[in-house]
Amino acid sequence: MTFLRNQWYCAALSHELKEAPLGRIIANEPIVMYRRGDGTVVALEDRCCHRRAPLSKGRIEGDNLRCGYHGFLYDARGQVIWVPGQDKAPPGARVRAYPLAEKHGFVWLWLGEPALADPAKAPAFTWNDDPRWASCTGHMRIECDYMLLVDNLLDMSHLPFLHINTIGSARDLNARLEWERGPDWLRGVRQAPALSPSPRQRAEGVDFDTDRVQIMTYTPPGNVVIEVIVTEAGKKHGDPSSRYDTTVMVLDSMTPETESTCHYFFGLCRDYDIGNTALTEFSSKAVLVTFGEDKDMLEAEQKIIDLAPHAPQIDVVGDHGGLQARRMVERLLAEEQQGTRQAAE
Amino acid sequence: MTFLRNQWYCAALSHELKEAPLGRIIANEPIVMYRRGDGTVVALEDRCCHRRAPLSKGRIEGDNLRCGYHGFLYDARGQVIWVPGQDKAPPGARVRAYPLAEKHGFVWLWLGEPALADPAKAPAFTWNDDPRWASCTGHMRIECDYMLLVDNLLDMSHLPFLHINTIGSARDLNARLEWERGPDWLRGVRQAPALSPSPRQRAEGVDFDTDRVQIMTYTPPGNVVIEVIVTEAGKKHGDPSSRYDTTVMVLDSMTPETESTCHYFFGLCRDYDIGNTALTEFSSKAVLVTFGEDKDMLEAEQKIIDLAPHAPQIDVVGDHGGLQARRMVERLLAEEQQGTRQAAE
Amino acid sequence: MTFLRNQWYCAALSHELKEAPLGRIIANEPIVMYRRGDGTVVALEDRCCHRRAPLSKGRIEGDNLRCGYHGFLYDARGQVIWVPGQDKAPPGARVRAYPLAEKHGFVWLWLGEPALADPAKAPAFTWNDDPRWASCTGHMRIECDYMLLVDNLLDMSHLPFLHINTIGSARDLNARLEWERGPDWLRGVRQAPALSPSPRQRAEGVDFDTDRVQIMTYTPPGNVVIEVIVTEAGKKHGDPSSRYDTTVMVLDSMTPETESTCHYFFGLCRDYDIGNTALTEFSSKAVLVTFGEDKDMLEAEQKIIDLAPHAPQIDVVGDHGGLQARRMVERLLAEEQQGTRQAAE
Repeated sequence: MTFLRNQWYCAALSHELKEAPLGRIIANEPIVMYRRGDGTVVALEDRCCHRRAPLSKGRIEGDNLRCGYHGFLYDARGQVIWVPGQDKAPPGARVRAYPLAEKHGFVWLWLGEPALADPAKAPAFTWNDDPRWASCTGHMRIECDYMLLVDNLLDMSHLPFLHINTIGSARDLNARLEWERGPDWLRGVRQAPALSPSPRQRAEGVDFDTDRVQIMTYTPPGNVVIEVIVTEAGKKHGDPSSRYDTTVMVLDSMTPETESTCHYFFGLCRDYDIGNTALTEFSSKAVLVTFGEDKDMLEAEQKIIDLAPHAPQIDVVGDHGGLQARRMVERLLAEEQQGTRQAAE
Repeated sequence: MTFLRNQWYCAALSHELKEAPLGRIIANEPIVMYRRGDGTVVALEDRCCHRRAPLSKGRIEGDNLRCGYHGFLYDARGQVIWVPGQDKAPPGARVRAYPLAEKHGFVWLWLGEPALADPAKAPAFTWNDDPRWASCTGHMRIECDYMLLVDNLLDMSHLPFLHINTIGSARDLNARLEWERGPDWLRGVRQAPALSPSPRQRAEGVDFDTDRVQIMTYTPPGNVVIEVIVTEAGKKHGDPSSRYDTTVMVLDSMTPETESTCHYFFGLCRDYDIGNTALTEFSSKAVLVTFGEDKDMLEAEQKIIDLAPHAPQIDVVGDHGGLQARRMVERLLAEEQQGTRQAAE
Repeated sequence: MTFLRNQWYCAALSHELKEAPLGRIIANEPIVMYRRGDGTVVALEDRCCHRRAPLSKGRIEGDNLRCGYHGFLYDARGQVIWVPGQDKAPPGARVRAYPLAEKHGFVWLWLGEPALADPAKAPAFTWNDDPRWASCTGHMRIECDYMLLVDNLLDMSHLPFLHINTIGSARDLNARLEWERGPDWLRGVRQAPALSPSPRQRAEGVDFDTDRVQIMTYTPPGNVVIEVIVTEAGKKHGDPSSRYDTTVMVLDSMTPETESTCHYFFGLCRDYDIGNTALTEFSSKAVLVTFGEDKDMLEAEQKIIDLAPHAPQIDVVGDHGGLQARRMVERLLAEEQQGTRQAAE
């Protein structure tokens, strides 16, 4: 068993589920998602029970999904309700249906035991559809283990190096970093004072130093929410005399596709100038440039790992978050495996 | 042993064997084919016995084939007759020669025991060079197990779905299907009455309903000939009052390249308007669009199969032909294996 | 153990080591090379000891190399001298440093035991920076076992076939070939008299026959230096009445990247018309066309080998050099293995 199963995995952005079915590999399983006539979302096994064609090459018919090869018609529970050439579908003609929860513009899939799926426990990225925030979202496929991206997001010491041409500040070398953890979450606070403006801040007209606080919250298997508060250097968040005082929520969810590839779903929500659609437009492009820098490095890292998977590595203080996250996933995996064994006895 | 060996496999179309040698992988073996000065065709192992360069990168010299690397010259039996730097070729310098049969524009290769190769038993796609028919042929490489294409061609219930934008009729849902079989062949008759015009029929000016009969004949390992008779709905084939009465022979031969890729050789022969070369030209392009729809679906199906090769599947009435064909191939494989064992004892 | 380790492998051309670090896979190991402020060259493991990002995606800072991900700073011995977020680098934070020798425009890497690395024993391609010669160099990645390229360069009987459109002469079929060998070298002399002009000679205005002598010197693991002397047919080298009398040194070094891919470093040095920079320019392009013919054939050969790695092959007189070279490499491999075993006891 490679991946946690009794977990909600982000599988799509709401706006991706429109006229056509959407096929994705999630944790090595082919999944097709679509939106029914009543607007609710459905996830089925993306493999026709007849000749194993992907149902995602078919079409939505009201509440149902029709295979594009021989026309097998599936209802939203995965039951075949029409087959060609005979009056009734054979008994057992069905594919697996997966619990799905749509919340605040993100669609969450439950791979494991359906009885255990509690939509209330799927992550709630509330900022994404809160009118007090301006938001943009995106999806990237990255050819790396999803945990490399968890490492990346929990260790922001890479900002002044990997992102020095976009959002990094050359002076961001002495941040204070503190972690706390609960049974199923990790929280890190990273405080970086008196930062010289990053290239992107300069482009926005910020020509003075700023203080930045990043509050990173991780929940398994691959969710990282980062609250980023930036104020004029030396001023407190909320101080009306600060020339700058913004909060951005960076919403990240990483979902394994295979052992060495993953889906990266993200949202960027800001609390300032929220009516400025040109800025939202700009942000949605700029974030692709920045995250493209991560993608490029992570795919290179994965190739080096593949060359010698057991090469040792050294941990430093910045790795605390990533290491804790990995330990949490390993513990949950062990618990799931034990649960599976007990259920089998 | 994955593939039948004592069988004729289509390996090329006649017009592909011209000035240059043609290299293809057939059932995991590298094969080079060429046409000699006297017009006869030759198939050799496509691997120079010297340094294993593919002979298909060489050139034809009269009856012989010269390796493009160091110039080893092979006669049509695969015997080396010249090597660089010494007066005589070393004993044993030869590659395997394969029996080849050219019939009606298709070239058939015998992979197995040469003594068993009887050209009379290679399929005869006679319509292809019969002056009473207008014909076009083609070759496609498809990244799927060749048996998936056999399944496809023996289950025409996919027409109103996969080909709904080309040759499918939306009303083609209630065809009558009957099968008979002999020891080494299968024949299915599929009768579909009162079909609304397909997009391609509309483009040809057919704006009335038609009846269609498809007579599918399968012979192992991968040959499917389909006689397609279309008449005005309610009229009999041959009735002079029918506004439409055509026969098209669809000639299909699928040859494994590897376990998960294949060659698809095909011909389309019509008995009407045979002097209309513009129509022939149009057909030869249109068939690529239609078969491109199959290729796209079959390659997607293969990827889903590769993801979980043992995922179960459900059979319906339309699968009878494909299942019988697979059983026939399995029986022949078992017979070949037994024969090999007996010969070894 | 697949590859010799206690050997100098060509890893770069001098001019490739400039502003940015250069990453290459050498014998399955990721290597990063760069030039320090003082002009000396450095080779380190191309895998950050922190999170295994390739250091070649970083930047050179004076004598040091900075990882582009989290900014780990390495000195030229591979020692980490700065990490983010803590005052000191952890003990053991280092990557492997490899002995490197830069000689005459070629950079040589020692993979094995550093104590055994003697730069004096790295090949000296002296002609490349000798003012009496005009020179051009290049690098190609070829998807074949590096020994296939050794075979290629030690058997010039392929010239009138593979290179018939560039440097081959159709009449080059009766060369005299003689070999001598020492413990760690091989030398072959190939004399080809009265050659009709090759296409490239014709383009240079040579419309008469020439005699050609090729003196090939192999040293393990993958170095082949070929001295090519061409004179007017029937005239001796040095005879002032010869309408043509040129020497070209072809410098070749092949380095395994993986078992089935390699780096090809080469130089072409001529002793005539050395001030003609247009000719040098032309040569540096023309050699890519000729060596592109080799690359194309060798990659095709490798694919055929991969299809059936144990297919037999036949040796002829031209293979003497390649076979001796392989035997030499196998003997050295056995010696290294024995040495390793003895060291372990």
